[in-house]
Amino acid sequence: MNEHVFQVVSLLISLVAFAFAGWLFLWVKKQPSSNKKIAKAGLLIQQGARTFLRREYGVLAKFAGVAAFLILVFLPSPIWNGSFVENIVMAVAYIFGTVFSAISGKIGIEIATIANAKSAEAAQKGIKPSFMAGFRGGAVMGMAVVGSSLLGVSLLMLLTDDPTALLGFSFGASSLALFAKAGGGIFTKTADISADLTGKVELGIPEDDPRNPAVIADNVGDNVGDVAGMGADLFDSNVASMAAAIVMAVPLDLALGGTMNLNMVFAYAALGLLASIIGVATARIGKNGSPTKALNSSTYVTTGVYVVLTAAATFIFNFEWRIWGACIVGLLVGVIIGIVTDYFTDDSKKPVHFVAHASKSGPAFTILSGISYGLLSVLPAMVGIAVSALAAYKLCEPINPEFALQYSLFGISMAAVGMLSIVGMIVSNDAYGPIVDNARGLAEMGNLGEKVLAITDELDSAGNTVKAVTKGFAISAAGLTVIALLGAFISEVNTAAAELGVEGLTGFDIMNPMVFFGLLIGAAIPAVFSAMLMLGVDRNAQRMVAEIHRQFKEIVGLREGKEGVEPEYDKCIEIATSGAIKELIPAGLLAICATLLVGFIGGVQAIGGFLTGNIVSGLLFALFMSNSGGLWDNSKKYVESGHEGGRGSDAHKAAVVGDTVGDPFKDTAGPSINTQITVVSLVSSLMAVIFLTYSIF
Amino acid sequence: MNEHVFQVVSLLISLVAFAFAGWLFLWVKKQPSSNKKIAKAGLLIQQGARTFLRREYGVLAKFAGVAAFLILVFLPSPIWNGSFVENIVMAVAYIFGTVFSAISGKIGIEIATIANAKSAEAAQKGIKPSFMAGFRGGAVMGMAVVGSSLLGVSLLMLLTDDPTALLGFSFGASSLALFAKAGGGIFTKTADISADLTGKVELGIPEDDPRNPAVIADNVGDNVGDVAGMGADLFDSNVASMAAAIVMAVPLDLALGGTMNLNMVFAYAALGLLASIIGVATARIGKNGSPTKALNSSTYVTTGVYVVLTAAATFIFNFEWRIWGACIVGLLVGVIIGIVTDYFTDDSKKPVHFVAHASKSGPAFTILSGISYGLLSVLPAMVGIAVSALAAYKLCEPINPEFALQYSLFGISMAAVGMLSIVGMIVSNDAYGPIVDNARGLAEMGNLGEKVLAITDELDSAGNTVKAVTKGFAISAAGLTVIALLGAFISEVNTAAAELGVEGLTGFDIMNPMVFFGLLIGAAIPAVFSAMLMLGVDRNAQRMVAEIHRQFKEIVGLREGKEGVEPEYDKCIEIATSGAIKELIPAGLLAICATLLVGFIGGVQAIGGFLTGNIVSGLLFALFMSNSGGLWDNSKKYVESGHEGGRGSDAHKAAVVGDTVGDPFKDTAGPSINTQITVVSLVSSLMAVIFLTYSIF
Repeated sequence: MNEHVFQVVSLLISLVAFAFAGWLFLWVKKQPSSNKKIAKAGLLIQQGARTFLRREYGVLAKFAGVAAFLILVFLPSPIWNGSFVENIVMAVAYIFGTVFSAISGKIGIEIATIANAKSAEAAQKGIKPSFMAGFRGGAVMGMAVVGSSLLGVSLLMLLTDDPTALLGFSFGASSLALFAKAGGGIFTKTADISADLTGKVELGIPEDDPRNPAVIADNVGDNVGDVAGMGADLFDSNVASMAAAIVMAVPLDLALGGTMNLNMVFAYAALGLLASIIGVATARIGKNGSPTKALNSSTYVTTGVYVVLTAAATFIFNFEWRIWGACIVGLLVGVIIGIVTDYFTDDSKKPVHFVAHASKSGPAFTILSGISYGLLSVLPAMVGIAVSALAAYKLCEPINPEFALQYSLFGISMAAVGMLSIVGMIVSNDAYGPIVDNARGLAEMGNLGEKVLAITDELDSAGNTVKAVTKGFAISAAGLTVIALLGAFISEVNTAAAELGVEGLTGFDIMNPMVFFGLLIGAAIPAVFSAMLMLGVDRNAQRMVAEIHRQFKEIVGLREGKEGVEPEYDKCIEIATSGAIKELIPAGLLAICATLLVGFIGGVQAIGGFLTGNIVSGLLFALFMSNSGGLWDNSKKYVESGHEGGRGSDAHKAAVVGDTVGDPFKDTAGPSINTQITVVSLVSSLMAVIFLTYSIF
Repeated sequence: MNEHVFQVVSLLISLVAFAFAGWLFLWVKKQPSSNKKIAKAGLLIQQGARTFLRREYGVLAKFAGVAAFLILVFLPSPIWNGSFVENIVMAVAYIFGTVFSAISGKIGIEIATIANAKSAEAAQKGIKPSFMAGFRGGAVMGMAVVGSSLLGVSLLMLLTDDPTALLGFSFGASSLALFAKAGGGIFTKTADISADLTGKVELGIPEDDPRNPAVIADNVGDNVGDVAGMGADLFDSNVASMAAAIVMAVPLDLALGGTMNLNMVFAYAALGLLASIIGVATARIGKNGSPTKALNSSTYVTTGVYVVLTAAATFIFNFEWRIWGACIVGLLVGVIIGIVTDYFTDDSKKPVHFVAHASKSGPAFTILSGISYGLLSVLPAMVGIAVSALAAYKLCEPINPEFALQYSLFGISMAAVGMLSIVGMIVSNDAYGPIVDNARGLAEMGNLGEKVLAITDELDSAGNTVKAVTKGFAISAAGLTVIALLGAFISEVNTAAAELGVEGLTGFDIMNPMVFFGLLIGAAIPAVFSAMLMLGVDRNAQRMVAEIHRQFKEIVGLREGKEGVEPEYDKCIEIATSGAIKELIPAGLLAICATLLVGFIGGVQAIGGFLTGNIVSGLLFALFMSNSGGLWDNSKKYVESGHEGGRGSDAHKAAVVGDTVGDPFKDTAGPSINTQITVVSLVSSLMAVIFLTYSIF
């Protein structure tokens, strides 16, 4: 069999995903819509989201230009060492990575800002059509993300056969994810907090009231944060997991002859995409069925189909069953972590009830109990990641005693590939959330009545539940991927060391003071990074609140809701956009500069410690913040649904404080840490040769 | 020179500390007191504190009995292997450790509950005598802590010459610290929160109002948490740092001949005690001087004296200058970390102003900004610890190329000894805080008037500022000590491995899946441990609030403050005490059981990862929580002093929420993590042989 056949088939399957996405897109587009108010608000949201993306991609283009130039000069090794071709390939791969991710983000935003209005109007006919509009809208994004990541990786391997170039591609995806996730996270929470503070708190007008100048920015924020941001994040993790696996597979295949390991990576990744297509295509909701159940069951279908398909492929192509085992362990642990995470944020479980009850004693107790449960929630995920990494390692270690270390690290990377195999489904479910959240807002703005609002509320609540699960999944997947990247880093260093004729790496000894030095500094970075983002939200929200106050003061008749008087929505979008980019850059630079500093001081050993500390502390803070935030959000909703005094009670006021604290926790800082970890890992892998050559110690 | 002469001299110097403590005790006791109300309230506090200690030591005695029995049977190796004598020595050393620490805690509590009343009454004559009563009261505790730790260590070495027995002694100290620090922390915050919630919030009566049934428990709490708890914590760190250094010095001395390394440990530790005595003895405050300045300058005097004394000793006894360098690096970094920590909690600096200003937008912003600055504050300390460990390692590595690893790890342990050398001064400053805090309460209960209250307020505020510094210092010292304990663990494993004829350890490779497995689990423990303690405070406070409500309902005339009607203070103390012990035990067991589980599953490699993850994550959470808590406390005080709207404003209400959240952060969870880390490290070192022999993998 030709050595590239698996890559060609993967490429073709990625095109199937695009075709399916196109069909879904057209299906959503042809759903009926007639309400003028909804159409107008929907258009404003769409324009706002486009404004943000244009501005963000504009800044990103400059950043990527500088980065591509630096890559051209320095990576994988300085150009004066004669590595012209490699450097050009790397720079082009980097740009490809940003562009592919940007395009899938753009597709996701376009469909999400169409599907929201469709879902709102469909709700007039019942929960089923409304759910389908939201779900299929989200699925377009899901298919675009996995399709373009598999397309990019297989295309690049077909063209270059150079796994290191994949790291460049992956770094491009990470750069974009940093902007999309952290920038989008700052945008969305700036708008959300400002809208709540001025609207609900100061003026006492309802959420999504069209008089509020921040209301469109708030709806835009849901899309840029959760659709484009989460999509870019999982695009990034997905590409990184494949890149790490391929970086380790190629030297193994070279040493052993054949292309089996490489083929396995492509086969398992492509089958994950197929399984996701089947899962999305079969998703159904009964006439009065539960949307949460429908979302979850489509995930389980995808998982089941994947296990069967990969087992068949392993049998047919005579793949190594141990590696299949590692892959399945990763997948199952990912699903289990998602389910356990759900416990901490589900409104029928103890933590939500406890926090709601504690709120009766005042906001301090809402905060303390939410933080406590958030801290408790890290244990199952940490144990899960630890167990899956250990199991994958131990499964694959005996495959070939001569390459025990290589195979065991490859096993971990395949566990990450397995965990991310159902990412198409996960992104679909995740993008569903903001679409139906927007639909709820549009239904309110379009005066569609209480009955329709009840339906959109139910869809929205399902979106929130599923979001907690997908976030737990995304963080764990990033964690396992970055452990795999640690293996890729060693592989890169050793390849370079062999060429330079210096000593390579077999690992990182904690008792080596350089490793320990890196470890402590790497561990501090996620804490500082997330603090900078949260302070950024704070500063940005202050600017926007000032703007809202100005509008209410200067625009006559706005406060009273006089017919024909409208706020200047675009000013708020402008503030959220420019502020997000301004606040994001120092945090991103901190992470990258710390990596360079540690690498130039302590070399590859210090970087090994740095990455380890960064992963461990990043996982802790990301899980803690995401879960506490989700818990507070649902506790507030639980109180609002009539418990512990219901709306307007003291418990409700306290629960709102918890929710406000939780917003930047779960939508800005927590999930951005993922991306920070991946960026730092990829910078390290790309700089491997430089650190090996130019470090002080 | 006889090999034990340094140990004998150390023992004598520890006796000097006791003599000096005795003199200070008598000085404080003979200060005048005449106010009957103060005497009565002071007596209640004293009795309450005694009740707590009696109950706590009672439970501890049972716990220690069980632990001593287990040690007798299993440690350092199972008794059926014929190690009768070693096991008996170890069990006795363990009991010694608990008893020595308990006695110094008892001394500290006794003097603190005398000095508070003396300081209150002395404030009528001015700030100078009031300060001196508070400071010298605290110094009794400081001298008792360092005196008894040095006495214990030198006595044990003189009697047994067995460094492993010192680990048993150290484990005894840790067990006590776990009870004193975590139990005391739960006690103090239960009482504080309940008193504030029912008194200030519900009834609108001032803090320290004698009608409040929780007021005495609150004052008792300051003593058991900050005097006995912090004392036990630093006793623990101090002993552990000496034990780690000695465990590494003895095999080095054996291999190289002579006792120089061991002598250095005793010399530097004993000189630290001398320097602290000089620092305490020369502490003075001008007639209208600043108490903060007086406290800080005594710390600087101690530091300076220590540098001079140790340099002289190194010159006279021809010690290794590189080791002296490591010791001084540790000390200076400790002082610098303290100063930097101060920035984040000082009410003249930006963070406090920022949080106070953010409070104007509501409690959610108080919380978000406080958490953000708390997360930022971890960076300088982490970098400081990383740099000092690296510097100590690199300084000492070249001493003897044949023993490069041993000397570099010994260097780190000497940096920890250096950092802890001024611990006498640190404990003195720390114990000063609750004494003058109590004095403020007593002055209020005794109706001593506004002028006196102003003086006690100033002394109290200095106590708070210094407390933030000493906490940063204590956490860093624990961090460096535990890194040293990691070295001690390797040393123990290797000694055992040599006897068993199996392979020893040279380090822990992060790419070893067992190490990584341990790392992830170890990192999760501090998060879960602190969450359990905070939930414990929450549950316990609910019990106490219910009791306070009962008293106000059932005791006629209490609410109105009728003459002769008194609340049942002892009921509240009883609830705080029994609840603290009940809530502490599961958290302590979790940490110990997780260690055993990981050790029995993955053996010494997994434990290496476990300890590393535990240290790194423990440092992060301890620093974050302590600093956020201190920041909120001072922001509230800053608002109360008239900024951002002052008392009663919305900003003040928000700042109070921050302070309430911060209380268990800074006084329960944050500093208890220290102790958790040390306990886990010592359990690991003691179980080294068992893990080496009986692990599954």
